[in-house]
Amino acid sequence: MLHELTIIQFTALLTNLSAMLNKAEAYAESKDFDVDVLLHSRLAPDQFDLMRQVQIVCDVAKIGVARITDTVDSTPVHEDNETSVAQLQSRINDVITQINKFSSDDLINLEDAKVALERWEGKYLTGQEFLIQCTIPNMYFHLSTAFAILRHNGVILGKDDFLGEMPYKT
Amino acid sequence: MLHELTIIQFTALLTNLSAMLNKAEAYAESKDFDVDVLLHSRLAPDQFDLMRQVQIVCDVAKIGVARITDTVDSTPVHEDNETSVAQLQSRINDVITQINKFSSDDLINLEDAKVALERWEGKYLTGQEFLIQCTIPNMYFHLSTAFAILRHNGVILGKDDFLGEMPYKT
Repeated sequence: MLHELTIIQFTALLTNLSAMLNKAEAYAESKDFDVDVLLHSRLAPDQFDLMRQVQIVCDVAKIGVARITDTVDSTPVHEDNETSVAQLQSRINDVITQINKFSSDDLINLEDAKVALERWEGKYLTGQEFLIQCTIPNMYFHLSTAFAILRHNGVILGKDDFLGEMPYKT
Repeated sequence: MLHELTIIQFTALLTNLSAMLNKAEAYAESKDFDVDVLLHSRLAPDQFDLMRQVQIVCDVAKIGVARITDTVDSTPVHEDNETSVAQLQSRINDVITQINKFSSDDLINLEDAKVALERWEGKYLTGQEFLIQCTIPNMYFHLSTAFAILRHNGVILGKDDFLGEMPYKT
């Protein structure tokens, strides 16, 4: 279940985010404005803009998977220097490739693992707490915020764009 | 892990939502406007308003837990007839009480379970697919949208209000 909950689902969410950005680009073109306007849009003046939301979704997925595979030290760093949709798409694809280097065999025992971020000054969470209370909520929070910024600016998106296709069986 | 991922985490998220609504009420009071304005706010004309977002978060949690405990038929129905923050708070509390009637011993084997909603016309998902690809994403989607509506309207909220307190250890 942990594999489906993380690598598989994060891959789906990143794929959905990529498709949303394509729709944003098509919308900007159809309305004859520069898509950069959307990349620098936000819902409140002290909120991160769309560009930063996308960068954070990428990092939450990448670092989340690095934590549960105990590979943080060998995980590539992204510099947050994207300036276009194309560069964001490239980063999303990089992260999809990166997290899919791991299979369910690579997942560590989360209950025994400790996650101690530098800014927590010596405190820690178990790996399971970090996943359930930090990684997954952050993943959805920033993805939903990206979606909300686009929706608010008129891009035609529905919940199916957010959820992706369901693997219905008959 | 399933218990932490669902009943425990959904309880935390509902508690955070309740606190956000308290902040919305305090903000409306401080600015001398009716909090109902916030309850009927949305980010796009064809989006559900805040009231409906809160109702949906409640239902996703309640029905999600009913599915994974195989208790859908005995789960109380809410009529979506709230008209005030106080009534929404009461519904949130009801759902917290409802989902905490179950312990980890009540959780069914999700991989063998089938979930077939009426509108899916005979198709189904496994219980695990329903949880990971439908319940959890919907929970966060509507909670984030509620948060975004409030943020956009000036209510002072930060990500800590969304995530809640982390159970740091030393």
